[in-house]
Parts: sequence; structure tokens; C-alpha cells
Amino acid sequence: MTKFKRIVNSIKPIDKKLESQILQHLNSLTKPQGSLGKLEDIILQYGLITGKIKPEIGGKQIVVFAADHGVAAEGVSAYPQEVTAQMVQNILNGDAAVNVLARHVNADICVVDIGVAGTFGDVPGLIHRKVKPGTENITAGQAMSNKEVLKAIETGIEMAEDAIQKGVTILGTGEMGIANTTPSSALFAALLPCSVEEVTGRGTGINDQKLNHKAQVIKKALAVNKDKLSSPVNILAALGGFEIAGICGLILGAAAHRIPVVVDGFISSAAALVTCKISDSVKDYLFFSHCSAEEGHQIFFERLGVRPILDLGMRLGEGTGAALAMSIIEASVKIYNEMATFDSAGVEKKLKK
Amino acid sequence: MTKFKRIVNSIKPIDKKLESQILQHLNSLTKPQGSLGKLEDIILQYGLITGKIKPEIGGKQIVVFAADHGVAAEGVSAYPQEVTAQMVQNILNGDAAVNVLARHVNADICVVDIGVAGTFGDVPGLIHRKVKPGTENITAGQAMSNKEVLKAIETGIEMAEDAIQKGVTILGTGEMGIANTTPSSALFAALLPCSVEEVTGRGTGINDQKLNHKAQVIKKALAVNKDKLSSPVNILAALGGFEIAGICGLILGAAAHRIPVVVDGFISSAAALVTCKISDSVKDYLFFSHCSAEEGHQIFFERLGVRPILDLGMRLGEGTGAALAMSIIEASVKIYNEMATFDSAGVEKKLKK
Repeated sequence: MTKFKRIVNSIKPIDKKLESQILQHLNSLTKPQGSLGKLEDIILQYGLITGKIKPEIGGKQIVVFAADHGVAAEGVSAYPQEVTAQMVQNILNGDAAVNVLARHVNADICVVDIGVAGTFGDVPGLIHRKVKPGTENITAGQAMSNKEVLKAIETGIEMAEDAIQKGVTILGTGEMGIANTTPSSALFAALLPCSVEEVTGRGTGINDQKLNHKAQVIKKALAVNKDKLSSPVNILAALGGFEIAGICGLILGAAAHRIPVVVDGFISSAAALVTCKISDSVKDYLFFSHCSAEEGHQIFFERLGVRPILDLGMRLGEGTGAALAMSIIEASVKIYNEMATFDSAGVEKKLKK
Repeated sequence: MTKFKRIVNSIKPIDKKLESQILQHLNSLTKPQGSLGKLEDIILQYGLITGKIKPEIGGKQIVVFAADHGVAAEGVSAYPQEVTAQMVQNILNGDAAVNVLARHVNADICVVDIGVAGTFGDVPGLIHRKVKPGTENITAGQAMSNKEVLKAIETGIEMAEDAIQKGVTILGTGEMGIANTTPSSALFAALLPCSVEEVTGRGTGINDQKLNHKAQVIKKALAVNKDKLSSPVNILAALGGFEIAGICGLILGAAAHRIPVVVDGFISSAAALVTCKISDSVKDYLFFSHCSAEEGHQIFFERLGVRPILDLGMRLGEGTGAALAMSIIEASVKIYNEMATFDSAGVEKKLKK
């Protein structure tokens, strides 16, 4: 059995038997019941994921998968492809947005070259796991072979397992890859009930003309690959990217080990959607960090029936949303673990009527 | 001239002359322009408030004003009045929700007894500035005399000035006071174009019958005090609370010294509204932390034409929303100060077309 199959088989639905015990403690804390809103939903979900009455947050890590895309040749992005490798270097230098936000919330960053077109020398900190220097152009055929997509997914699984081994108790997804909103939109269009237009946006900032062109490119990719769009993994191979497959693996690996994953933005959500199609149980392990300003992200949330934690109009990716939301999740767990109860604090309870 | 008048007179509109310089640096950072959404709005506002090209965040402090309300006798809250003093003790013990969240974001808490009905002995950490042990019942007349309301406002101003002297560069508002959504709703009804019903909610969790009763109580308070509802300060004296007046002072004191204030939830917003009516220039110095689940908070945002940073369905007060939003604001300032520019990182810029 492949590592992929083994991991997928070991993902179990979250065990709800602790629910009443968790709620009992939550409702004994010195605050009106329910008055912390979404933070209380987070507490319950976090507890059920970990299966612990006193869940703790240990290490926090954001894994940034970087890769290039053959479809960049179609002119779907506002930036040249070289920017992928340049931004990987920028992240390794500690100077990108995701670095600032990860430092702010005290999370580690791990950067994985899973398919960047350029070559890196001996760059401190970079994890070299290049499957191939970029995907094939999806308007001409499938992005990855079945062997390649499995290798990328298994790389993600290994990243999750390495992190967990080192004491990480919550993982965040991140990515860098010029043109990667295009494969993401294609995945949404293939996996959700929606039109291409509904899930195609401006990415890093293209104009109206390029936006229209991008939608045509995605339609062509769906048409060219239509015989391949059978299983979720085949759809990922046909339309996806190496970084998207890596994120899929990270999510699957985390869920198999009952570790919560904070899903970043639009691209990470496309990966999350693939994993939810691979296994019904995955969704319970996911926290969706924020609603991106990228058109279509709202559609994704509506159709999947989930709600993001933040809505800050961000559309940068990298793991920036995951970093900020991770801090809200940690705050929630601390509320549960650190607050006094009505009894311990000697605070009178709500009046009977 | 009173301290109050002097402070109000020294509040100046924010100086927009740095705007282009701030935006120039922001747009040189290694990210698509505008891709950090609300964080970028925060950066600009923060820079303009402080008037510094490289604004820094030094000390962060949440000031929790605690007071009781004569109107509690009307049965408008789900909790008995004794809970105010008990929760003050809980906060001083470090065990309330606001303590957990303030620790999480590395902010200090300062607790001020500005009008609690109970007496405290030698309680470590409590700042004793009681104007009076609770307001008068607003259904029978004005809550505070003009002398009392000014003393409470000036207490808030002094809290701001003390904090700034100690190196605090961003202040958050907080409060504790059983029944204090009732005076807050009354203030909204008196100061906004809205009905009493639109801004009257369930507070700590009252049932339908009590909610209806609470609206009647507020209407009675507005009717009984109708001759007093002339200036913002007179309206505050007639309908408000000592903690609300304290928050007003904190905001005015901060704005006068160009220090940003993070406004917590429903009650703090009522105080913020009073200050915006006192001085047109105050609004620019305020960050609204979150949209409370309390009915009417959304109306406040719409009518004032402002947008909160977070929307987490919280309705606890204490300063809990201010703590979480303070962290987002700090993250934004760090983005501006710490990220590489396209030039410094050697990252290629956006394609010309």
C-alpha cells in the first residue's frame, strides 16, 4: 500500500464523545455562555480534533510550498515567473509578509521547493524536495503525471509528520507560485458546483482584459483535460500544481495524526477542497483562516458550508492569513485552559429568571 | 480652563501630509499593492495618527473601568449587581477572559474602580478612583451630576496620560459593570438617528420578556431626562455610567496626545460615540476592534460610517475585543516596518501590461 493510501485510510472522523465534557468546562468559565462567539466554536473543534480535555498548543508551524506553473506561459499573472524563486529567497531571508506575521504570532516557517522552475544553490533553510521544475501547461494536457502528483502529496505528508515529530501541534498552510490562482480556480470549477467565472479572480492584480483571458485559459484547461477529471487525485494531477499537491499532503498527514490545520487563502482552499473530496473526515480537522478578497473564495465557503475566522480583505497568500488566524485559535485554547470558573472565582451565576 | 476643556481643545485633526510618503513605502514592499487589505488601511491610519514615517508600537495597555449602575434595580441584567465587584477581583487575579487575551497579545491591563457599588480593601493592582458607588437610576433622573461626570472623564484623561508617560503607544478600552448595556443603548438612542429597539439587545443573556422590559426602561430614561439631553456631556451625565465616562476620558486624552485607541465592543462604542460628538477630530484616532453580537452594534457602525477590524460574534466586553484587535494592529505596523522592498530583495516588479 502506498504511503498516500495508508494515510488516507487512517483519517478517522473526529470523536464527538468529549463534546459534553468540553462544553461543561467552557460553560463554567466566568463569562456569559456563548459570549465569546466564534472563539467558543474554535475551542470545541480544537478539543474534539485533539481528543484531549485539556488541549494545549505546542509548536506552531507554517509550511510554505513553492512551485511554478506551465500555465504561466499563457500570460495569466501580473508578475513574471522568475518572481517565484525570488520570493522564495525573500522568505528564506525572513523579509516577506509571511515572515513578519509568523514572527508576530510566534510560529515557525518551513519553506519547501516542491517544484520551482529555477535552481537554488546551497540556500540555508530551504527544504529541497523538487518533484520537477514546474508543472506542464494545463491548456495542453495534464499538469502532473500520476506518479508526480503522488510524489508531491507524499512530500506534504512527510512535512506534516516531520513537524509533528518535532512537537508541532498546529500546522498552517502556505504557498508561493506565480500563476497559481489559475490552477486553483480550475480546481474549484472542477470540484464545486459553480461556473468558471464565479471562481476566477484577479490574483496578484490583473486587469479586465487579462481576467477575461484567464477565464478562457481555465475553460480550455478543463476541456483539454476532460477525460482525466475522474477522481479527486486525477483532477489534481490534471489541473493542479506541485505546491497545491504538497498542501493536500500536509492536510492529509495532519488529519491522520489528529493535528489541526489552519488553511490559508484561495490557493490553500483549493487544496483543502481536494482533500475533502478524498476523505469525508478531513473537513473536521480544518480551520479556515480568512476570506480572501479573491473572487470565488466566498463561493467556496458557501458551497462547502464552512465559515472563515477572519475577513480582512487580504489576498496575498504565502500563509499570511494562516498566521493571523493561528493566533486567534491559540487565544481560544488559552481562554479554555486559563480562565477561572464561577466556582473557583467566587462569582455569582446568572439569575434564575 | 478645566482639564477637560484643555484636552478637547488640544485634539487636532490627523495631519494627512505624510499620506503619500507612507503609501510610497507601503507600495514598495514585496507584495502586490493592496493585497493586505484592511491591514494596509490600518498601517496608513496608524502612521497618520502618530505622524511618524516609521511608527513603532511600544507599550500596549488596556484600561478596564469598572462601575455600577442604579438602573440595575430595574431588573435589566441577567446577573446580580454584586458580580461587578466579583469580576473586578477576578480580573485583578488575572483569571478573566480579558486577562487571558491581554497576556496572549502581550498587553498590560490596568483596572480602575471608577464607581463600583462595593468597597475593596487593599487589593493589589486596583486603581482607586471611585467617583461614587454607582450611578443614580436613570429612570428617575440623571445618572451623574455634571461635576461627577467631569470627574469621571478627567479620571480617564489621567489614565491615558499616566500610560503614555510610562511608554504606552497604543491604548485599548475595557469595562466591567453589570447592567451597562442599558445606559449604552440609551446613549446610542440619544445620539444616533435610530430607534430604542434597534440598539437594545440581550446583554449578558436576557430572555424576550426582559428584553422588552429593558427597551421600556430605556424609553422611560430618555423621557425622564429629556430636558437634559442637550450637549454630548450633558447626555452622558444624564444616561451614562462612570465607566463609560472614564472611557470617554481615556479616548480624549489619547487623541490629544496622538495615541491610537482600540475601542472594544458595544459599551466602549457608546463612549466613543460621545467623544466623536464632543470633537469632530476624535474619530481619526480610533480603531474599532470588532462587531459585537449585541444587537445595535452594527447600526452604530453603519451610522458612524466606520468598519470594525474583527467580526467574531463576541459580546463579552471587558476589553476582550480590543486585545485581539490590538494584535492585528501591531501585526500591520510590523508589516510596514519589517518587510523587504522589491528593490532591497531583488524581486521583479509587476509586468507593465
